[in-house]
Amino acid sequence: MDYQKILENIAIETESLQEKGKVANYIPELSKINPNHFGISLRFLNGELFQVGDSNVKFSIQSIAKVFSLSMAIGLFGESIFQRVGVEPSGTAFNSLLQLDYEEGIPRNPFINAGALVIVDILLSELRHPKQELLEYIRKLTGNKYINFNDTVAVSEKSEGYHNAAMANLLKSHGNLHNDVEEVLDSYFHLCSIEMSCNELSKAFLVYANHGRLPKTNEQILTKSQAKRLNALMQTCGFYDESGEFSFTVGLPGKSGVGGGIVAVHPEKFSISVWSPALNKKGNSLRGMKALELFTTKSDLSVF
Amino acid sequence: MDYQKILENIAIETESLQEKGKVANYIPELSKINPNHFGISLRFLNGELFQVGDSNVKFSIQSIAKVFSLSMAIGLFGESIFQRVGVEPSGTAFNSLLQLDYEEGIPRNPFINAGALVIVDILLSELRHPKQELLEYIRKLTGNKYINFNDTVAVSEKSEGYHNAAMANLLKSHGNLHNDVEEVLDSYFHLCSIEMSCNELSKAFLVYANHGRLPKTNEQILTKSQAKRLNALMQTCGFYDESGEFSFTVGLPGKSGVGGGIVAVHPEKFSISVWSPALNKKGNSLRGMKALELFTTKSDLSVF
Amino acid sequence: MDYQKILENIAIETESLQEKGKVANYIPELSKINPNHFGISLRFLNGELFQVGDSNVKFSIQSIAKVFSLSMAIGLFGESIFQRVGVEPSGTAFNSLLQLDYEEGIPRNPFINAGALVIVDILLSELRHPKQELLEYIRKLTGNKYINFNDTVAVSEKSEGYHNAAMANLLKSHGNLHNDVEEVLDSYFHLCSIEMSCNELSKAFLVYANHGRLPKTNEQILTKSQAKRLNALMQTCGFYDESGEFSFTVGLPGKSGVGGGIVAVHPEKFSISVWSPALNKKGNSLRGMKALELFTTKSDLSVF
Amino acid sequence: MDYQKILENIAIETESLQEKGKVANYIPELSKINPNHFGISLRFLNGELFQVGDSNVKFSIQSIAKVFSLSMAIGLFGESIFQRVGVEPSGTAFNSLLQLDYEEGIPRNPFINAGALVIVDILLSELRHPKQELLEYIRKLTGNKYINFNDTVAVSEKSEGYHNAAMANLLKSHGNLHNDVEEVLDSYFHLCSIEMSCNELSKAFLVYANHGRLPKTNEQILTKSQAKRLNALMQTCGFYDESGEFSFTVGLPGKSGVGGGIVAVHPEKFSISVWSPALNKKGNSLRGMKALELFTTKSDLSVF
Repeated sequence: MDYQKILENIAIETESLQEKGKVANYIPELSKINPNHFGISLRFLNGELFQVGDSNVKFSIQSIAKVFSLSMAIGLFGESIFQRVGVEPSGTAFNSLLQLDYEEGIPRNPFINAGALVIVDILLSELRHPKQELLEYIRKLTGNKYINFNDTVAVSEKSEGYHNAAMANLLKSHGNLHNDVEEVLDSYFHLCSIEMSCNELSKAFLVYANHGRLPKTNEQILTKSQAKRLNALMQTCGFYDESGEFSFTVGLPGKSGVGGGIVAVHPEKFSISVWSPALNKKGNSLRGMKALELFTTKSDLSVF
Repeated sequence: MDYQKILENIAIETESLQEKGKVANYIPELSKINPNHFGISLRFLNGELFQVGDSNVKFSIQSIAKVFSLSMAIGLFGESIFQRVGVEPSGTAFNSLLQLDYEEGIPRNPFINAGALVIVDILLSELRHPKQELLEYIRKLTGNKYINFNDTVAVSEKSEGYHNAAMANLLKSHGNLHNDVEEVLDSYFHLCSIEMSCNELSKAFLVYANHGRLPKTNEQILTKSQAKRLNALMQTCGFYDESGEFSFTVGLPGKSGVGGGIVAVHPEKFSISVWSPALNKKGNSLRGMKALELFTTKSDLSVF
Repeated sequence: MDYQKILENIAIETESLQEKGKVANYIPELSKINPNHFGISLRFLNGELFQVGDSNVKFSIQSIAKVFSLSMAIGLFGESIFQRVGVEPSGTAFNSLLQLDYEEGIPRNPFINAGALVIVDILLSELRHPKQELLEYIRKLTGNKYINFNDTVAVSEKSEGYHNAAMANLLKSHGNLHNDVEEVLDSYFHLCSIEMSCNELSKAFLVYANHGRLPKTNEQILTKSQAKRLNALMQTCGFYDESGEFSFTVGLPGKSGVGGGIVAVHPEKFSISVWSPALNKKGNSLRGMKALELFTTKSDLSVF
Repeated sequence: MDYQKILENIAIETESLQEKGKVANYIPELSKINPNHFGISLRFLNGELFQVGDSNVKFSIQSIAKVFSLSMAIGLFGESIFQRVGVEPSGTAFNSLLQLDYEEGIPRNPFINAGALVIVDILLSELRHPKQELLEYIRKLTGNKYINFNDTVAVSEKSEGYHNAAMANLLKSHGNLHNDVEEVLDSYFHLCSIEMSCNELSKAFLVYANHGRLPKTNEQILTKSQAKRLNALMQTCGFYDESGEFSFTVGLPGKSGVGGGIVAVHPEKFSISVWSPALNKKGNSLRGMKALELFTTKSDLSVF
């Protein structure tokens, strides 16, 4: 199959869509992005790489970073972390605070903000230099030591992050945050501020398509079972209120971020990342969602 | 791989679990079932069949039947049905009525009761003899014309079905039920009362592992894309409040029923059904869930 | 104080308001009402009566009738009824189904629909001819044997009453409705269809301003304590989502109906009723609310 | 009527109740209180004072202080404050965060924590020395310049006040908190830490029974209409989830605090305060509630 051709056609067919979305504007730094950026990076386990557009331009990966923090926490502490965070999809966001209260401070899954805060809290309790070690972990997956936080974005998010602060305090009131609220928020906003390109993301995620083994070194950073579970969580919970929709139209485990990036994997086959900053109403990249739907349709490469 | 041996080991390893669950008792007819029944049926696309235990004993398939009504509705009316029912997981059941009201009568997905009622309503509007035609459809998938409703169970459920009646009336008040409330409930309870064995279920579901084509006749009852979407819905919404858990531990699209049955499929590979009547707190077969988890772990046959 | 003058001034000052409201349109029969009707009836315990406008024109009293059914139930069964219905305000209507489910089928108070259905159910369990006996009770309070149901309105409401049917079924599923759902709904819709004029309403409610004693005959239909409690319930729960607002601006215990009527009492002093069919967004008579606010302001006759 | 005798009898009749409640234990400082304290202070507008028990012992007035901050805000800014806080009862506490989110950051009333935080925020925006000026205001109402904060309690509450911090951050995220979250919380916790005796409370509240005029000096600190509205708010919202119950059993506008104090007023007649530290499940003084119920029953002095 001519994957290069498929990607190029997708780029053309979806071009008109980016006008229909809106760049995230709640953070000044993110709102400045040129909405016309577009890139795809498709990477097979055998090493083949196909790419179109701005596949080497770095962007703010935002919530995609929650996969890395979860992966690190699973690798370090195993299944025990699921005593403090669930594995169920969250339903609508509108009642997330109600659910958190009703379910006694146990967030529904590690990808909603409350859950990601708990994962960060778990890492903070055990790591000596949590922000730095998290960065090293992501650099290792990517094989690139220049990956970094964007401090301006982190500070900017923190200064407007009252809803996350409400979540963190609610978790604390339920006893499910062990560290200082401010410290957890600081690490969390730094995590979300990491910048990577499509090519870097597809590289970093290849390990999740490879049953937890780093393709280059064969190092097993997650067990086969852990990798399976991480993928299952991406499948059912990776796209906020639109996880069902992504599963329904694309049919791959994946994760999105409000920076406009999406990454998905096909176990035993490939990883694919796409970037287009304009978002749909649910906060997912509008053109990116369509591009991935077209990709699994044209290539017949969905898990379902 | 010796699948027969795997299934036999699973039967032994999970035997103690059935005491920990509870047979559904809200319907007198269901509460009479012997909790010690246990069966598995594993059927590959190449025709191979492996089975253990009571794999030929019929039981009440209950919510598993929602897959058949949805499949029939998709086949007849295509994607248009998703204007009246969503494709997102539902979060906890405790706020299902709130969500239905908040989301203006559009059920979150076709597998929660409200969604299944809408699907039945769609079929009622178009079919001349809806209950009979639904039965014929299932008989065709199974290649068995003796599959039937259990009228005693249907009547029994209806007489206690006040929560479903509340749902149906709420849907009606939002204009998302076009037929008479009583008629919709009658068809719905009949649908849930269908009785099938593990071997019949694995046969009926093979079409969903085969991209929508009936293995015997090659007849395409769903398009490839429709079959993909049906599987995606089973993956994200097939197990009530435990859809994430099933995805997380088993890693296959599937559907459960309060009769204690579970069916799952691996696209392009196989279908598998299990039956053990004792349920966990979320209403899914306790031993059945564990049996399938062990199966994908031992066989390495998860989609993730 | 010249109460006649006060009422006449209020009629003039509030005249422009009725254009800003909307006549209830969910029931065909109610939507036909001329929105320009307006009447007030003010009746003191000493027998003095002041009235303006259409104070003798009958209208559909709707939810005001819930005071009569509650009064009858308290008189017959005493405080025991509060084991099946609460005495707390309900918060917003939007989550009424959630609350009912969360609070295990115990409606928050007897004036929300769910609570009124339970009160009707209590009466149905004990009375031989519930609809007739309820009518006799109201006739006795009013001293007028021509008060009656409007069957057309009752039938009309029932044919569209799916939300109430949802409530009734939910109550039934929680075991808090002992009679047949259809029968309870039939009695409930008949109760709401009763027609009375402002003068009749102010007469009927005088007993609640008189510590439970009928002014004419001195018959004690409620004990002093029961009358106090009924008034307290009207104060905190009588105006749907606007109970606080009515308490805040008017400062009297009272009850409204979607027919555009409002009745209020000042214990030991008077009863007052007003009618203007055009409703505000919360379903209360827009001009009626303002008229009563002006009355307690001008007359200094609030309980606070 | 022999009010002294009535109060003494109430003290005897309710004595056994204090064992059934529980002293608030979420703040170390509050949990140290001797649960056997009990006092009542009844003060008529004509100057008569009746008291029993520990009526001169100071205690932490906690949420009762919200009446003072609201009173001060109404006096300073009039009705405009009700653009930022509602006047409706709140329903159950369990969905307070949902409601706040659903209602776009407008708390339902000034007595739930979220509403009291907004009132404090309003005062912070306008006062030069808000904590000191608030103290002066309360001293003026009481005619006692020794009323003060308890800094230990304030600090203690703040260190455990994560739920309030969640609320404050949620308000901030909705734009309904204009000052710094930490500053608002600091003032709020200081406000709640004020210590007064029953006799001081009954004195301070007499102004609300007197249409807003200080009895001693005749100074009008609230207009008649403002005093009416404050009383109406106490009637419908003064007792958390039990406002209906207090209205139903006692029948007076009032306010409680988790320190075990309750104050109530009868417009144009009297104010009454009671203190017993052991609380019922809803957080109101168990013995205090009963004492006031007995008082209005024995004295026939309810507003209803």
